[in-house]
Amino acid sequence: MFRWARTFSTASPFLKNASMASPSLRQHSFQVFRDVSPLRQLRRQLLLDKKTLGFVPTMGALHEGHLALIRQAAAENTDVVVSIYVNPTQFGVNEDLSSYPRTWDSDVAKLEQLNDEFARLEGETGRITAILAPTSKVMYPTLPPSSEIDGDGSFVTITPISRKLEGECRPVFFRGVATVCMKLFNIVQADRAYFGQKDVQQTVVIKRMVQDFYVDTEIKIGETVREHDGLAMSSRNVYLGNRRRAVGLVLYNALKAAESEYNSGKMARSDILGAANSVASRVLSEQQALSPTERALYEVDYISLADPDTLDEVKSIDPAKGAIISGAVKMAPLEESKPGEDCGLGDGQVSVRLIDNLIFKPRA
Amino acid sequence: MFRWARTFSTASPFLKNASMASPSLRQHSFQVFRDVSPLRQLRRQLLLDKKTLGFVPTMGALHEGHLALIRQAAAENTDVVVSIYVNPTQFGVNEDLSSYPRTWDSDVAKLEQLNDEFARLEGETGRITAILAPTSKVMYPTLPPSSEIDGDGSFVTITPISRKLEGECRPVFFRGVATVCMKLFNIVQADRAYFGQKDVQQTVVIKRMVQDFYVDTEIKIGETVREHDGLAMSSRNVYLGNRRRAVGLVLYNALKAAESEYNSGKMARSDILGAANSVASRVLSEQQALSPTERALYEVDYISLADPDTLDEVKSIDPAKGAIISGAVKMAPLEESKPGEDCGLGDGQVSVRLIDNLIFKPRA
Repeated sequence: MFRWARTFSTASPFLKNASMASPSLRQHSFQVFRDVSPLRQLRRQLLLDKKTLGFVPTMGALHEGHLALIRQAAAENTDVVVSIYVNPTQFGVNEDLSSYPRTWDSDVAKLEQLNDEFARLEGETGRITAILAPTSKVMYPTLPPSSEIDGDGSFVTITPISRKLEGECRPVFFRGVATVCMKLFNIVQADRAYFGQKDVQQTVVIKRMVQDFYVDTEIKIGETVREHDGLAMSSRNVYLGNRRRAVGLVLYNALKAAESEYNSGKMARSDILGAANSVASRVLSEQQALSPTERALYEVDYISLADPDTLDEVKSIDPAKGAIISGAVKMAPLEESKPGEDCGLGDGQVSVRLIDNLIFKPRA
Repeated sequence: MFRWARTFSTASPFLKNASMASPSLRQHSFQVFRDVSPLRQLRRQLLLDKKTLGFVPTMGALHEGHLALIRQAAAENTDVVVSIYVNPTQFGVNEDLSSYPRTWDSDVAKLEQLNDEFARLEGETGRITAILAPTSKVMYPTLPPSSEIDGDGSFVTITPISRKLEGECRPVFFRGVATVCMKLFNIVQADRAYFGQKDVQQTVVIKRMVQDFYVDTEIKIGETVREHDGLAMSSRNVYLGNRRRAVGLVLYNALKAAESEYNSGKMARSDILGAANSVASRVLSEQQALSPTERALYEVDYISLADPDTLDEVKSIDPAKGAIISGAVKMAPLEESKPGEDCGLGDGQVSVRLIDNLIFKPRA
């Protein structure tokens, strides 16, 4: 479909600013931008060259879920921009901004590996052309980024859907997400942008924003990537450790139990949520019966059965629309660890909020 | 610099949807779009043809101020899009949305005249290529447009500058303006967008929005266009009538008195605002002394001396930055009219809020 060189040739107009002092030294196979204008130059050139651009916004700490999105973006576009930016305005003042994993070197290594993989496909797929890793001064050029609910700044708000579900626990979250995505979309001007279904409310908010503001970028949703046992991939999973990781699977299992009800023909909220809640409380009872060195406790923030467009809770599933079942579970810190136990980054003392969801497709 | 045909040739790709049944019938010299996708097609073609696009957003009721902006846009771009849309979300629930003048036929006639004027310049200037006159369902595709302060929807908010000055009296105004402009900017994707200095706070809010969200459109400000005696052109002036129109000049005269102080070397707030306030109260006393058939009363909403970027009130003008002096005056309905008096649209019973401003340039 199209071809690209494994490394930039010296004829590339985009190499002018890159250090080429020692050509034997391995260069990145993509450019790294910290600011906007050189990326805009690249974007203009891609347009004139009739290339297509896919965009994968991330907060770094890349895992297989991100890589799957980038593969999808490369399959559907000649060029891919990946942004890595931990956006402060989507973390509430008491949330885990400071402990959010920052893993630049391993992120870059993973992206290099992906480009190697794409190169072996020899023109069957696109490639990662650039990473955008802006500073907060670039992303918030006039006022410091505020995480206060009543904080000042330039924001995009998408209500009422931003107040539901995750927004109930995290009141500034989707304001921060919509705001940073509007900025990134305007900077990158991609043909397509890719988001994972794991953050399902985020996908609903972003699609609504793109529709209401006529953002000229198509939003594509990639399926949730899971571990072999079904745990949804998440950058926060590194804080779990083995014990909480095993128990944390309860959320997925609860959602799967609900899905079985739907697949068996049930439509009533009580039937479907009943199945999920019964898994969640059974597992919690089992854990509570264990000793502090064996157990992992958790709280269920919510399990929701909602309309896929409005995120309004539904009493009964409309077979023409289907539904989204989603949930959030907060894994408490370990009470006591065993000698030699793998308790994860932060020694099991960081509480970890897990979210997951399944889409119930319409029954036509 | 470039040439354009006075009317579309039949080869124009943009004429496909226009009615050409009766070629003797006068066609518009521009296209009229009510929806987004055909305008996007036009925009893409302009890009491929390396044309440049200027955009003048309006709420219709076009006057010389708008026409000056369109002339500027045509002088600086090959093609100009003018939008005509009375945006409900920038009118508060108790404001004059319903009485805002709607004058489609005369607006179109004025734009036709402008294109005639541009045609006579034979390639020395660009032309109006399209009018965008969207429905509210197009501009607010998901939820009905809300003017409530706590109303739901997809909004852009720019604080704290939106709360100052006009925002104090009109709490939803700049949220509505920023929101509709973000939509329009994304739809039109102009190289340059043109706003009049008369709405100076609007220019500050829009420039801030473009900066913070990396909107890829340059904002250009056109000077305030005034009647022969100095009254700033405004779509709302048609409601004034002769008597209130004459007295309404008080605002401009107050600002000019302040400007004289600045030009004579004064920098202190008290000196500069003192001069303005003394004009405003002297004229009001003069009016109050007249009979109800002769006088026109008003209230001063504010007269502000502010920093040009933040709109913070200043105690003393920083000579390196200069300042903005701005004010708003509400002309009350006439108490009694005289037989045969021209009281303006609405018979002098519509109260009319006038705003105006002057920029004090930095003294280097």
